[in-house]
Amino acid sequence: MDDPIYTDYPPSLSPAQQEYLVTATKDWAILNGLTVRPNPATLPEGADPNRVLATNAPVTLFPSPFPRVCFEEAQALQTVYNELYAAITCNEEWLGKIIEDLIDVDDFVANLWKTHLAVQKEGYVQNLSLGLYRSDYMAHVTPNHAPTLKQVEFNTISSSFGGLSALVRSLHAELLTSPPGSPISYPPHPLLQSGVPPENTAVETLSGGLAAAHKAYGPSKSTPGLPLCVLFVVQEGERNVFDQYALSKRLTQFHKIPVFRLASNRILDQTTIPSSNPSRPLIYHPPHSPASAFEVTTVYLRAYYSPDEYKSGRDWEARIHMERSAAIKCPTVLNQLAGCKKIQQVLAEPTGPDHLSSFLSNIDPGVIARLRETFAPQYDLSAGGQGWELALNPETALKHVLKPQREGGGNNIYKSEIPGFLRSLPESDWKGWVLMELINPAANAENVALRNDGEVLRGNVISELGVYGTILWDNTGKVFHNEQGGWLLRTKGKEVNEGGVAAGFSSLDSVLLY
Amino acid sequence: MDDPIYTDYPPSLSPAQQEYLVTATKDWAILNGLTVRPNPATLPEGADPNRVLATNAPVTLFPSPFPRVCFEEAQALQTVYNELYAAITCNEEWLGKIIEDLIDVDDFVANLWKTHLAVQKEGYVQNLSLGLYRSDYMAHVTPNHAPTLKQVEFNTISSSFGGLSALVRSLHAELLTSPPGSPISYPPHPLLQSGVPPENTAVETLSGGLAAAHKAYGPSKSTPGLPLCVLFVVQEGERNVFDQYALSKRLTQFHKIPVFRLASNRILDQTTIPSSNPSRPLIYHPPHSPASAFEVTTVYLRAYYSPDEYKSGRDWEARIHMERSAAIKCPTVLNQLAGCKKIQQVLAEPTGPDHLSSFLSNIDPGVIARLRETFAPQYDLSAGGQGWELALNPETALKHVLKPQREGGGNNIYKSEIPGFLRSLPESDWKGWVLMELINPAANAENVALRNDGEVLRGNVISELGVYGTILWDNTGKVFHNEQGGWLLRTKGKEVNEGGVAAGFSSLDSVLLY
Repeated sequence: MDDPIYTDYPPSLSPAQQEYLVTATKDWAILNGLTVRPNPATLPEGADPNRVLATNAPVTLFPSPFPRVCFEEAQALQTVYNELYAAITCNEEWLGKIIEDLIDVDDFVANLWKTHLAVQKEGYVQNLSLGLYRSDYMAHVTPNHAPTLKQVEFNTISSSFGGLSALVRSLHAELLTSPPGSPISYPPHPLLQSGVPPENTAVETLSGGLAAAHKAYGPSKSTPGLPLCVLFVVQEGERNVFDQYALSKRLTQFHKIPVFRLASNRILDQTTIPSSNPSRPLIYHPPHSPASAFEVTTVYLRAYYSPDEYKSGRDWEARIHMERSAAIKCPTVLNQLAGCKKIQQVLAEPTGPDHLSSFLSNIDPGVIARLRETFAPQYDLSAGGQGWELALNPETALKHVLKPQREGGGNNIYKSEIPGFLRSLPESDWKGWVLMELINPAANAENVALRNDGEVLRGNVISELGVYGTILWDNTGKVFHNEQGGWLLRTKGKEVNEGGVAAGFSSLDSVLLY
Repeated sequence: MDDPIYTDYPPSLSPAQQEYLVTATKDWAILNGLTVRPNPATLPEGADPNRVLATNAPVTLFPSPFPRVCFEEAQALQTVYNELYAAITCNEEWLGKIIEDLIDVDDFVANLWKTHLAVQKEGYVQNLSLGLYRSDYMAHVTPNHAPTLKQVEFNTISSSFGGLSALVRSLHAELLTSPPGSPISYPPHPLLQSGVPPENTAVETLSGGLAAAHKAYGPSKSTPGLPLCVLFVVQEGERNVFDQYALSKRLTQFHKIPVFRLASNRILDQTTIPSSNPSRPLIYHPPHSPASAFEVTTVYLRAYYSPDEYKSGRDWEARIHMERSAAIKCPTVLNQLAGCKKIQQVLAEPTGPDHLSSFLSNIDPGVIARLRETFAPQYDLSAGGQGWELALNPETALKHVLKPQREGGGNNIYKSEIPGFLRSLPESDWKGWVLMELINPAANAENVALRNDGEVLRGNVISELGVYGTILWDNTGKVFHNEQGGWLLRTKGKEVNEGGVAAGFSSLDSVLLY
């Protein structure tokens, strides 16, 4: 259904107004590092042989109105969500029971679980785990009711866009207030005169989590001691690097912590675990300084979240290598597994054991109830029942999305395509999928997007709010650092079903609270 | 001759070291706005139809050693140079006599002078002038003598690279100290462990000058009063925009002054001077906000410094339009003319009237003598004498450069090409040129450049130090603001005779003082 807030928002743009906003946005993005590397496949042959070019990240020209009550609720619940996923990760028995059920239908989950079992057999040497999370939501609109907050997914690995989303907030705040004293960058509109987007501390929060882990690692476990560092494990050819650099810049400049970047395919070449040292420190050998060695306190994964990144056994070997080391992992294999859609669905089950209250025994029941309110109805597809009915009936399927156990989007099946897709799979594979009721954001939401090739698109959009949190805990469940801070608004054209800002399908946005 | 400081500098780089430094530099540049727009002519057809791409500015991978005594002398003299060029501009009779001598051989100078005369006839309505200057030098090396500072040229219009050079200083400082506590970005070398480049306050200094002029303009001269702004007049299709944005960002964020950018070919469309207002305020009408109008306190020219920018009478009309307005010009036509090479040559004349002492009557004679020491020998070519001899003799020509009355480089004639070039001109045109003895920087200076297409070049280089200054004065010679601050090191491959960083021929650099 419609939300009246969008009735005349955003205001229409004359050609001169659009030219001004586009130029200001393009230039601001390059000046301030709101950037991505262009996709080499979209550039003509030979345009960038040395990979030096950059372009603006895809952004909306206007901030999007977002219900204040939903925004504040998402922030209020984030540290509770942090605790929930830490607690799930600590309860290996509970987690393992769900995961083992997925193993025969999901190779990726199976290989992650095998990685855990292999390290468990040898014995873990690091009790601490670090989570850098992003909980994604939509504002769900229903007739005669204030919008409510509904969770889309909870990301436990490689939660991205913290660096760039803080910049988009600054971009929109600057457009809203410029020039100083006589703001005219936007056409006049009451919403655009109502204030600026709230502060966005994503960079401080996420790098603060990494810094807390770095500190908690303690002194070097090597003899003689080595200088310590944080290691960003990244994808080779990553285009969303400036988002990551926003965090390493803060770690280096503010926290004074050495950070190195290492492509996942070089882990086994450039890191070692001395076999003579039972503490198993992870040693990084910078190829550009052969005489140096650093001990890795914290491995921050911005890679290895997707099955297609594991090209051979060597990638699994690298993953085990890191997992068995003394470095604090962000995340551990178990914590990554806790992000499976199946976990979300089990937590959301309206009947049966009250998992939430078990995991959050020290949290006020009223707060747990609020957290439960953020769950959209979702269904098990392992064996008949309501899930099968809703998925196979073409009419009810229209209100649902089918999700595999993946992060990062790009794999979901929507609405009318669900029944046919399910029937194309053997029934024994259905349990690898979760059926979720679609959330209904305002149907008339509109915005104007500037793509990273400079094309300008106006139309109906759907926005997802992500809220960042970070938590450091040990395997007894003791929590050492638990913070929330910073947010992301990701806005996509309505005809596009999936996210993935770097791929150009959706845009980074910011919020005007109402 | 050689300088022993360069004997083993910069250290050689292994492939892994070079890969690390190049990647770190390329990414740092995009993250921090050390960027330029790529030249569309060097991109394949269709690579960037919407002009969104950016690349790193050309930079050196290493800072260059530079004699501390020369660096400090250049800074010590800058406010005196500021005063000198303000005083020359105030002395219209003295300036006019020299300029009128160039009129019949230099159309550009003639048209500038005509612009001044036209406005003078009507009467100027603005007594204040603003200079944003850059004095360019080399460290001149002679046997058995400490290096001395010799001036290459003094720029009175569109002095560029203040924004980017401050960033290159930060880039090199960061590489020298990273990672924190265990710096290994560079290979070990005593010079690279000796400290970081000195602070570079170019952005603060240059925007501080513009802010001083904005404030000195006083209240709006319109009825009713209009909001005030600074206007950056820029070239259409300018690629070095982020250098300019560094100044406008500071003006907006720190000084809270509205800034607009206006392409020179749109001046007559988007600004007016109400004929009914004898104060002649310059009114800017933002096309993206038709209901708004701003009164321009200060016109900052980053355009109209070169003859090829005046494509028709309309450009001269636009120049007169600004000149006759109440806006403070940075620079005025007269101040631009004061930057002619001929002025530099007259000031440097070893015999005849002591112009320096006349213009700087309130300055200590010892300081004037130091300023005079920065002049390289230079010769009048108007009528025979020593200049002709040195220029036409193939042997002495080798030690000289022939310069027209232009800023921005690209027009000079060097060494063996001088005699033939001069002979190809009628003798009556020779007076439009100045012959200058070449300065001898260290012959063995070396560096590694990262071009803006990502190519890496190592070789012998020549570096020019630029020092920024700003001065605000009125036509009686009273000075209201006179500051120096910030610097530029521009380093070019030795086989390349001319500067022009944005064109890819030379690189932005920073200094390690020794």
